[in-house]
Amino acid sequence: MTRHYNFCAGPAALPTAVLEKAREELLDYQGRGLSVMEMSHRSPEFVAIAEQAEADLRELLAVPDNYRVLFLQGGASMQFAMLPYNLLGQGGTPNYLYTGIWGKKAIAEARHLAGAHVAASSEANGLTAVPRQEDIALSGDAAYLHYTSNETIGGLAFDYIPEGRLADGSEVPVVCDMSSSILSGPLDVSQFGVIYAGAQKNIGPAGLTLAIVRDDLLDRARPDTPTMFNYKVMAEHGSMYNTPPTYSWYLAGLVFQWLKHEIGGLEAMNALNERKAAKLYAAIDQSDMYSNPIAVDNRSRMNVPFVLADDRLDKAFLAESEEAGLLNLKGHRSVGGMRASLYNAVPESGVDTLVEFMADFERRRG
Amino acid sequence: MTRHYNFCAGPAALPTAVLEKAREELLDYQGRGLSVMEMSHRSPEFVAIAEQAEADLRELLAVPDNYRVLFLQGGASMQFAMLPYNLLGQGGTPNYLYTGIWGKKAIAEARHLAGAHVAASSEANGLTAVPRQEDIALSGDAAYLHYTSNETIGGLAFDYIPEGRLADGSEVPVVCDMSSSILSGPLDVSQFGVIYAGAQKNIGPAGLTLAIVRDDLLDRARPDTPTMFNYKVMAEHGSMYNTPPTYSWYLAGLVFQWLKHEIGGLEAMNALNERKAAKLYAAIDQSDMYSNPIAVDNRSRMNVPFVLADDRLDKAFLAESEEAGLLNLKGHRSVGGMRASLYNAVPESGVDTLVEFMADFERRRG
Repeated sequence: MTRHYNFCAGPAALPTAVLEKAREELLDYQGRGLSVMEMSHRSPEFVAIAEQAEADLRELLAVPDNYRVLFLQGGASMQFAMLPYNLLGQGGTPNYLYTGIWGKKAIAEARHLAGAHVAASSEANGLTAVPRQEDIALSGDAAYLHYTSNETIGGLAFDYIPEGRLADGSEVPVVCDMSSSILSGPLDVSQFGVIYAGAQKNIGPAGLTLAIVRDDLLDRARPDTPTMFNYKVMAEHGSMYNTPPTYSWYLAGLVFQWLKHEIGGLEAMNALNERKAAKLYAAIDQSDMYSNPIAVDNRSRMNVPFVLADDRLDKAFLAESEEAGLLNLKGHRSVGGMRASLYNAVPESGVDTLVEFMADFERRRG
Repeated sequence: MTRHYNFCAGPAALPTAVLEKAREELLDYQGRGLSVMEMSHRSPEFVAIAEQAEADLRELLAVPDNYRVLFLQGGASMQFAMLPYNLLGQGGTPNYLYTGIWGKKAIAEARHLAGAHVAASSEANGLTAVPRQEDIALSGDAAYLHYTSNETIGGLAFDYIPEGRLADGSEVPVVCDMSSSILSGPLDVSQFGVIYAGAQKNIGPAGLTLAIVRDDLLDRARPDTPTMFNYKVMAEHGSMYNTPPTYSWYLAGLVFQWLKHEIGGLEAMNALNERKAAKLYAAIDQSDMYSNPIAVDNRSRMNVPFVLADDRLDKAFLAESEEAGLLNLKGHRSVGGMRASLYNAVPESGVDTLVEFMADFERRRG
């Protein structure tokens, strides 16, 4: 068995230690005679797994008591629809910041279901820098302000948490799609109304979606909200209104344990992610072959897109990097070039190997 | 490692051979250097897994070419909402058959989102027999007829496929929740408009939901349908509008392979399920201690609820059966007593062991 370095943007690399633990327990969980996959979600064994996962996540992110943690399905795309249903029961217009493809999709779904106001956009700078707080112009009837902390495809990340300040000084809830940045470092959850994230980058396998919802927002659902969309229903049932994705929940729990005990928490994870990203951006900036277009302050630590000066070399770069055990470096089809996703589970040795490969490739082909 | 017999109603037993194969490939899928969980859903490797799973399912169920197979999320409860959105774009009233708790939930969600007409009900007979075709009274504006082929909690199953015949002789699509009966035997898919099933009984792990939709029904969505609810969008994107639950899809594919190659297809599965259920019902009927209230023709082969003549013995029955390696025999909290779910992955030897245990328990305690 060989484990290669996997720079996939998602579903993404998982820690090898987590997969080894899962393998060990796959047919017989702790001597119970069955797999976690085969357990009733209401069994004491699974409830203990689920509760431990939530407790560990709360500890890692220091989630305040007035927030509910929900384990849902459907990915960020489902949240794009769930938000207008859950937050517009008292009327108002959803406000969005547009900084890339995922934000655009969130806006499109809000427009489809309720309408949306774009309070600030990075379109004018070609999606290379995020709007500053002073550029954000909320509509007077704003119900919430939504943004994407890290645009997975563009590699554009917020370097601050926007505020949802209205002209009269009042605040609307800030809602954030953190699919590709959650758990990459410490977070002040209290600044948000809702945080959500598809699991398949820093949490676990695809098919699980995390939502962290401030409890005063649980009473704002539109009356026509589908039951399975309703945060309050999910909160009241401990995310078990119906059968949850139990095995993905279990795996997420193993990732949280790994973050706590192998990595040492989110401060340590943060330092490691800083180091990984700094090494790769330095390699890009110091080369004549590679470039990244994003404003330095808004460069993503998680997704690093870069292009080759001569795109006729793309094919060779991809073939040779794969040959060298560096997988999934191809950029998103809408952007082209390369993209290295450096999620939590990508070890520093993976970045070192990539940087060496890039330098070697430049020497040979540049 | 010991694998016990698992009679859980869902998430349910999976074939040991499937779990062994998954374990073998968990950290390194066929020498690619990564887990299936870590693959892009758009990678050639995963697309091949996904397409093979669909092809095998189509072969097993002989799905006609004019049906689309969708791999979704959210379970049957999500389908309860998706159906009114997808099928009421041309107006009309959803019609439902009420035969148990799951049908009741489907009706409640349709009422919440659109309204519903109960075309026939088993309420008068205490949910012990299904309505006959001649009892079904559709509303004149029926948009579809929904029923639950097998009520998991009550253990009540249809012994025929209802028709959606209107007074003028025209037909409305028949929609069926087959969560706990799909793949238990051959099926004439052509009699249905939509078939759906949560995976966690006969398909794979929780978090995957199958829908089989006749393609002429893909154009009936209400304009306010959330994108992630829209069958047509999912069909057009090969169930990859966003990231699907890739690992669950892969495991479902392993189950389909097991059905084809280990079991020998759905005729063989059907014969095995017949035998398993016949043995357990015979044991119940021949005893003075155990009883099952369901009309003989409507007894479920998948979920066999039974009560003890003296419910003060329930605790001892459960403790001793678990001690004997017979897991999860406790009945649903709304019904009490016992329930043995005999899904495809429960081997005949499990039923034999259960029947022996029941006879022994009766001898000792009866």
